[in-house]
Amino acid sequence: MKNKYAIGVDIGGTNIKLGIISSLGKIIKKTMVDTMGEKGPDVVVSQLKKGISELIQKNNLNGRGKITGIGIGCAGTVNQEKGIVENPPNLAGWDRVPLGSIIRKEFGFNVFIDNDANAAALGEMHFGAGKKFKSFIMVTLGTGVGGGIISNRKIYRGDFGAAGEIGHSVIDFNGPKCNCGSFGCIEAYVGNHYLVKRIQGEMKSKTDTKIWDLINYDIEKLNPRVIDEAAQMGDEYAKSIIVQTGEYLGCALASIANILDISTFILGGGVAGFGEPLIKAAQRKAAERALIPLRKRIKVLPAKLKNDAGIQGSSALVFYRMDK
Amino acid sequence: MKNKYAIGVDIGGTNIKLGIISSLGKIIKKTMVDTMGEKGPDVVVSQLKKGISELIQKNNLNGRGKITGIGIGCAGTVNQEKGIVENPPNLAGWDRVPLGSIIRKEFGFNVFIDNDANAAALGEMHFGAGKKFKSFIMVTLGTGVGGGIISNRKIYRGDFGAAGEIGHSVIDFNGPKCNCGSFGCIEAYVGNHYLVKRIQGEMKSKTDTKIWDLINYDIEKLNPRVIDEAAQMGDEYAKSIIVQTGEYLGCALASIANILDISTFILGGGVAGFGEPLIKAAQRKAAERALIPLRKRIKVLPAKLKNDAGIQGSSALVFYRMDK
Repeated sequence: MKNKYAIGVDIGGTNIKLGIISSLGKIIKKTMVDTMGEKGPDVVVSQLKKGISELIQKNNLNGRGKITGIGIGCAGTVNQEKGIVENPPNLAGWDRVPLGSIIRKEFGFNVFIDNDANAAALGEMHFGAGKKFKSFIMVTLGTGVGGGIISNRKIYRGDFGAAGEIGHSVIDFNGPKCNCGSFGCIEAYVGNHYLVKRIQGEMKSKTDTKIWDLINYDIEKLNPRVIDEAAQMGDEYAKSIIVQTGEYLGCALASIANILDISTFILGGGVAGFGEPLIKAAQRKAAERALIPLRKRIKVLPAKLKNDAGIQGSSALVFYRMDK
Repeated sequence: MKNKYAIGVDIGGTNIKLGIISSLGKIIKKTMVDTMGEKGPDVVVSQLKKGISELIQKNNLNGRGKITGIGIGCAGTVNQEKGIVENPPNLAGWDRVPLGSIIRKEFGFNVFIDNDANAAALGEMHFGAGKKFKSFIMVTLGTGVGGGIISNRKIYRGDFGAAGEIGHSVIDFNGPKCNCGSFGCIEAYVGNHYLVKRIQGEMKSKTDTKIWDLINYDIEKLNPRVIDEAAQMGDEYAKSIIVQTGEYLGCALASIANILDISTFILGGGVAGFGEPLIKAAQRKAAERALIPLRKRIKVLPAKLKNDAGIQGSSALVFYRMDK
């Protein structure tokens, strides 16, 4: 695996991030271009080509090895066999864009596309917190709650490549309405927007929390980072929000562990920024609720890959395929 | 696969059922012995040997083919690699009994042991409602709620062979206490005892249901069969219990479908005797709550194997291994 490099591409709603990554996860070079998502798929594709060209031309591998492929991660449903991206929720006007063959033709590399949660899972498996685990579940806590299932060092994909939607596992069938159309999904408790909205509702009766100062008494400014900041200042209410978020999550993780007999969970994404108190509460609640043989084994861990997780994870799509 | 036969053994708390089954699922001969579980593992094992001997000696294959192995299904955790049965909940005093090697030594056949839910899943896959599905989830609705996950025609086992415990997926984290120690597991809603107990509580205020007549005004006599009988007589309350049971189940199935990207569910076991109304309610609720791409695909079906499902399923353990 020495001297192997891959290009990792993370297509986001605002930016496309790109990097040349070594098979050990080291970032050799990185760049970023505007997604220009509002201009439709053709413009996004040409932005993507521009970014890749730049990386390849200015690569500083200097004979240290060669690029073996391009990995692309993006939101939404991806037909990873055919390299087709279907309706990413953060990009307007996309309807089955054959990104794989377009990029392959342009650059002559093998191209591997997958959704961002699976890419994140592979990133942690190859370079991060999942290195030493046979199986684990990657949980991405952001606007949505995504998941990637690694079972026996392979991605578990299910019948149509859509497995791992753990954000839409129920914790209370009578719970709050979820964007997916159902009720009480874990996403409707711990997803960024839902969390903020619930706390905005509660804040009215919480006159003595430090959060009010931090948001300048403007409830619209509430976000997970502010809650975290207040918690770190010792604010009891803010701390309780984080613990509760972890406990909600733990309820879902226990269920998932029971179904899959996988006991390691790696938490990434923005809400995971709550850090240790979130992780601990999730771990405690999941271990409390899982079936007895699983309890001792339950492990909830923070993701190791941070700011560059997107491009590192996408590059892992290439290394993963090469390993097989 | 012609002229192949297997012995299927279903170890229950009261009886051990045994049969010689063809690779098409046909029962050639069957028998039954007392489990004598209260006398401990040694007696159970000798009962098991007695049953197998009887089957083999009196087998009427008459040169039509030969027995290729013995499949054994039992409750609880089974180390199927090593053929070890660990603490079956319905058999006292068992602690890691190496049933596989004991029976192999005695009879010289290959022996395959698995838990009863996986055996049921394989039975449906080989001989029943799962024949034409690439992937499906077997749901056994009895005292407990068990499950077997068939993904791409293989059993999904997870890390320690315990995957598929769908009875312990949560539908309400604040729900009723479950025997497993957690709260609001689907088993705590639709498992035989829980269902009966909940309805016993409700019955006090349901003075006009026909169920009272059927149980001779003795609330202790309530069981799912009586509820079904009342429903078939047109009793509205009894009908509503069945629909509600299906709806609870549907909530869990939607979650499971979202996690696994498997959309076919096959329901077996006693509570599945509620039949069509249960199936329909579960199907409707699961389709209503699953993620959009899954909704159209959700299928909830009754198991095809009935009274002999146990021995047929266990025999499928042999045919499954031979296919690989």
